[in-house]
Amino acid sequence: MVVVLEPGTTEVQIENIIRVLHEHGFDIHRSTGVAQTVLGAIGVRPDFDHRQIELLPGVAEVVRVTEPYKLASRSFKRDGTVINVGGVKIGGEEIVMMAGPCAVESEAQIFTIAEHVANAGVKVLRGGAFKPRTSPYAFQGLGEDGLKLLRQAADQFGLKVITEVMDRSQIDMVERYADIFQIGARNMQNFTFLRDLGKATKPVLLKRGLSATIEEWLMSAEYILSGGNHQVMLCERGIRTFETATRNTMDIGAIPVVKKKSHLPIIADPSHGIGIRDKVIPMARAAVAAGADGILVEVHNDPDHAKSDGAQSLYPDQFTQMMHEARIIAEAIGRTLV
Amino acid sequence: MVVVLEPGTTEVQIENIIRVLHEHGFDIHRSTGVAQTVLGAIGVRPDFDHRQIELLPGVAEVVRVTEPYKLASRSFKRDGTVINVGGVKIGGEEIVMMAGPCAVESEAQIFTIAEHVANAGVKVLRGGAFKPRTSPYAFQGLGEDGLKLLRQAADQFGLKVITEVMDRSQIDMVERYADIFQIGARNMQNFTFLRDLGKATKPVLLKRGLSATIEEWLMSAEYILSGGNHQVMLCERGIRTFETATRNTMDIGAIPVVKKKSHLPIIADPSHGIGIRDKVIPMARAAVAAGADGILVEVHNDPDHAKSDGAQSLYPDQFTQMMHEARIIAEAIGRTLV
Amino acid sequence: MVVVLEPGTTEVQIENIIRVLHEHGFDIHRSTGVAQTVLGAIGVRPDFDHRQIELLPGVAEVVRVTEPYKLASRSFKRDGTVINVGGVKIGGEEIVMMAGPCAVESEAQIFTIAEHVANAGVKVLRGGAFKPRTSPYAFQGLGEDGLKLLRQAADQFGLKVITEVMDRSQIDMVERYADIFQIGARNMQNFTFLRDLGKATKPVLLKRGLSATIEEWLMSAEYILSGGNHQVMLCERGIRTFETATRNTMDIGAIPVVKKKSHLPIIADPSHGIGIRDKVIPMARAAVAAGADGILVEVHNDPDHAKSDGAQSLYPDQFTQMMHEARIIAEAIGRTLV
Amino acid sequence: MVVVLEPGTTEVQIENIIRVLHEHGFDIHRSTGVAQTVLGAIGVRPDFDHRQIELLPGVAEVVRVTEPYKLASRSFKRDGTVINVGGVKIGGEEIVMMAGPCAVESEAQIFTIAEHVANAGVKVLRGGAFKPRTSPYAFQGLGEDGLKLLRQAADQFGLKVITEVMDRSQIDMVERYADIFQIGARNMQNFTFLRDLGKATKPVLLKRGLSATIEEWLMSAEYILSGGNHQVMLCERGIRTFETATRNTMDIGAIPVVKKKSHLPIIADPSHGIGIRDKVIPMARAAVAAGADGILVEVHNDPDHAKSDGAQSLYPDQFTQMMHEARIIAEAIGRTLV
Repeated sequence: MVVVLEPGTTEVQIENIIRVLHEHGFDIHRSTGVAQTVLGAIGVRPDFDHRQIELLPGVAEVVRVTEPYKLASRSFKRDGTVINVGGVKIGGEEIVMMAGPCAVESEAQIFTIAEHVANAGVKVLRGGAFKPRTSPYAFQGLGEDGLKLLRQAADQFGLKVITEVMDRSQIDMVERYADIFQIGARNMQNFTFLRDLGKATKPVLLKRGLSATIEEWLMSAEYILSGGNHQVMLCERGIRTFETATRNTMDIGAIPVVKKKSHLPIIADPSHGIGIRDKVIPMARAAVAAGADGILVEVHNDPDHAKSDGAQSLYPDQFTQMMHEARIIAEAIGRTLV
Repeated sequence: MVVVLEPGTTEVQIENIIRVLHEHGFDIHRSTGVAQTVLGAIGVRPDFDHRQIELLPGVAEVVRVTEPYKLASRSFKRDGTVINVGGVKIGGEEIVMMAGPCAVESEAQIFTIAEHVANAGVKVLRGGAFKPRTSPYAFQGLGEDGLKLLRQAADQFGLKVITEVMDRSQIDMVERYADIFQIGARNMQNFTFLRDLGKATKPVLLKRGLSATIEEWLMSAEYILSGGNHQVMLCERGIRTFETATRNTMDIGAIPVVKKKSHLPIIADPSHGIGIRDKVIPMARAAVAAGADGILVEVHNDPDHAKSDGAQSLYPDQFTQMMHEARIIAEAIGRTLV
Repeated sequence: MVVVLEPGTTEVQIENIIRVLHEHGFDIHRSTGVAQTVLGAIGVRPDFDHRQIELLPGVAEVVRVTEPYKLASRSFKRDGTVINVGGVKIGGEEIVMMAGPCAVESEAQIFTIAEHVANAGVKVLRGGAFKPRTSPYAFQGLGEDGLKLLRQAADQFGLKVITEVMDRSQIDMVERYADIFQIGARNMQNFTFLRDLGKATKPVLLKRGLSATIEEWLMSAEYILSGGNHQVMLCERGIRTFETATRNTMDIGAIPVVKKKSHLPIIADPSHGIGIRDKVIPMARAAVAAGADGILVEVHNDPDHAKSDGAQSLYPDQFTQMMHEARIIAEAIGRTLV
Repeated sequence: MVVVLEPGTTEVQIENIIRVLHEHGFDIHRSTGVAQTVLGAIGVRPDFDHRQIELLPGVAEVVRVTEPYKLASRSFKRDGTVINVGGVKIGGEEIVMMAGPCAVESEAQIFTIAEHVANAGVKVLRGGAFKPRTSPYAFQGLGEDGLKLLRQAADQFGLKVITEVMDRSQIDMVERYADIFQIGARNMQNFTFLRDLGKATKPVLLKRGLSATIEEWLMSAEYILSGGNHQVMLCERGIRTFETATRNTMDIGAIPVVKKKSHLPIIADPSHGIGIRDKVIPMARAAVAAGADGILVEVHNDPDHAKSDGAQSLYPDQFTQMMHEARIIAEAIGRTLV
């Protein structure tokens, strides 16, 4: 932490500031320039609230100079993490496709879609059994029956399962059916839940909150990592801005930023990122081009009658086209996509 | 719902759109103008996803024309809701002050603060026992011991208790000690939790999410109301914008907007809204002047050594000054503040 | 500027970083801690682009520790600036009201409004002659004829004139009629224009850009100040956020922040800040309560037929009520409002 | 425009609303449903302020149903506009690369860079002669001398010239040297300037404002188009959000959205979009993959000593690599890039 003092701060004020810093356990390096004094404070606790120092008389500014996360940081672990989900490797050279409907609706629906996406080269089947909906009057998912159907459809076509767990009370149940836990944007800072996921044995895909900075997102990953679960992947799914022409603003720039700051794999969700079907394919292409390790996308055999998010779900044919285009781009940048 | 068609849409396209709307259960009023056709679709389900229609060929725009919430709306209930918390009335003529530390830290601390704020005219004591912290390495609260101390201090000085419940698994425990449940900004869209709060018997203060629109906030209130708990108050605590000089941007304008759209009481939290002690008082004054029904504010007997949020907590003397100024402003606009 | 190095940076890398800093004219203080080295770089030019250092191998973070503005800063000038506009003092104990229509439309209109607001205690008459409109097809103002009418109406009722100048080519003309130049939000970073205003002899009210940080706003003030015109006042008029229920989000918190960072007076514009008539009064009250030095507000004798912004213009009676309430709040916080 | 009335609105209120709409020149279609009445108002002027109706008693909501722009709209002109700049076609099958330094600094600099980018396949040379800088103390460009050097370098290597014009007073001078006018983000809503550009004879590249919606951006294009200059291309260069890890948030999603709403070509500027050199290449790739018609990028022969924006300028070798990768992606999606 660096404490910059105002020009003209008195020696008495400086001594007081140093005393307070010592009380908080810091070692101090003092640099006195012609116009200004700067204090280097070494040994900060990760949770120290720098506003405590900012308010002291004579202080112009306080600057935290270390990242507040550690285990999620690339300076902690230089090599990119590769998560092995029963043979499917996420974070390596290959770009992993995860596809399926927003919600599991029926046996016929999930089997039809699973077959289509498996044939197109997908490795992981997505589908929701518990749906977080902004309206209390909307379809809320099939619950455990949905999980069973999802597992059966995946097994039938040699796929892994990713599905959302909404709550710490659901962890045990979902763990019986899923290969990857998906954590929704609205739960990104549900800290008691993150703590419990740190004790789970399955990998976690952590979606970015609608208004979360990249730093906060990595802090939330840190919660899970610090609990002992090292299999965390991140998922960019759009942030909220003033723009209303799209459901969200997909922060494609977050992909190279996360790649530099962290060793964790980064997945992109163009379905939520842009929110309308006819623009999902260009956004999926852009995410692959920017370096994403995987794509999570909504596909439905009959989007016009889907019980949720039909408008952002691809038709099966569109999905096949998306796979084709993504594959060529992957190769253009030296990666593979089966 | 109003469906605006593109100029030049063919009759075949129009018939197709009408057919799809009928399938979704709508009655249709068709208005054919010189240049453009407009369809009025009556009877929408509250959760209908209008993007389903937006994607049909020939559709220029789809406009949802009814609010997606009902029980929270002022058109549903004209008179403002007054919540009676053991004689303390929230939402009436009187502006209710809720004050106390960010976190309960010790018996001495909470009793000292409770005595000070009670003497200054406060009716409700705030204090956290479970702290949601962005860092897994930070102080996480005293837990149930904290709740006990909070209750004892409140009883000693004739105060009611408001405290945060973080999770559905904590509802029963917190209900034994608290008079009002506080729901944090990060939980505003934790829907399984909101559903459970709808069955609880204590009033709920629902904080606005960091990137939640006012409409979404009222939808979250609707979740609680539709479960049967009608004692919901809202709390503006700052939203996230591009401005970095303050912790959050306190949306004072949300106060008159909520007053017009909803019958629920609206409370303001200037401590989180601005995030630094020396600007909390002007923001509290502004909130009262804009029509808030109450103020929730952090006060600490020794902010410099507080275990959390000390930098935004008022010194006891500042709090007394804030009460004094808020009282005069309340009277200026025809309200009271004891 | 403080340069924080990554743990494990080699001595060769450190020497390279120091060499580059020397090339850019910095003096260096080096602090080598156990885990990390920190370099203090003294003597930065105000326009130095710190990203130049951020990209060097071994650098973890670069922190600019001085404000990029100087003349606008309160550390440069401790006492608040009071601008004397022909006897009307802006920035002193008294809160100054500036009111009038969005646009001058006719002689009858501007004289009617001028008389009403003068009787209500207003000191400065506002009104636009050149209107910046998002649509090329909308009313664009009366031009110089509007300026003449505005001046005549003001003189008739003993008022000063504030009006928008849109362009450097209009400065000379507007200077002949106005007492204060109003610079619109969209021109806040029109730097050639700001530079010319620095040579003008009339005071300038500088509106905050829709997405401008407070720091950028003060930098724009610096442009004018550094040109030699020291009569600058700032005007908060709402920023753009994700919220769509209001035209803008009025950042009331900017008022105390600017008061602390700068010596320049700060005015609030609740008409643009909230954008709809029925919420202008609570926002004006909030701005006064938060410490604004003045209010700029739109009033119209017949808002329903106004040629621009009628929907956010107060009726004359509402304006009288606003003055009354603002006056009581001003007194509550130890200020005056005639 | 559609006017939705509140449930329970009286017949007298409805008649009043219809009267006001007639006064404003609308034809009315009335649909009376069981619970609610909806009025279709036909014939709206493009600049009508719908808030005028919103405030009438009995009105629940007013919805503008036509886009406020016309000439910029794809419904006005189905085929994409191709702008021919002396043989270089922008908006066609080929993706056009525009590259060069942020600012022209010297003859040696601009000739060196021009040669490099011409060899790499670039068609248009960029470079600023007048620099809009947030600090009044920063390098402001070489002025007309810079324009001359830019023209000479371009002619030497067979390139076209794009350069920023900052002000209406500069149009004539810049027109003598440039092939394309670049309008900066901060000038996107400088309406007197846009009006003058509508009378210019050279094509215009219009950058999106930092907080401009896509609709506002198209409205600004409409200003130029309605003046008679039909050669307008748009440029996405990042918007402002709460994220601070990048200089701006590049809205890649704007590319397919603009493609659908408008017939104008869309260019992407990854240098400003992400703001730091090491992430420019992935963002350029993403923009091509999303469907951009061209890329505008900063390249410098010696970025470490550039007078402005060196930190986001590519090294010549990086630029060559970017061209290579962009070319393969262009082909992957059925386009060309020479």
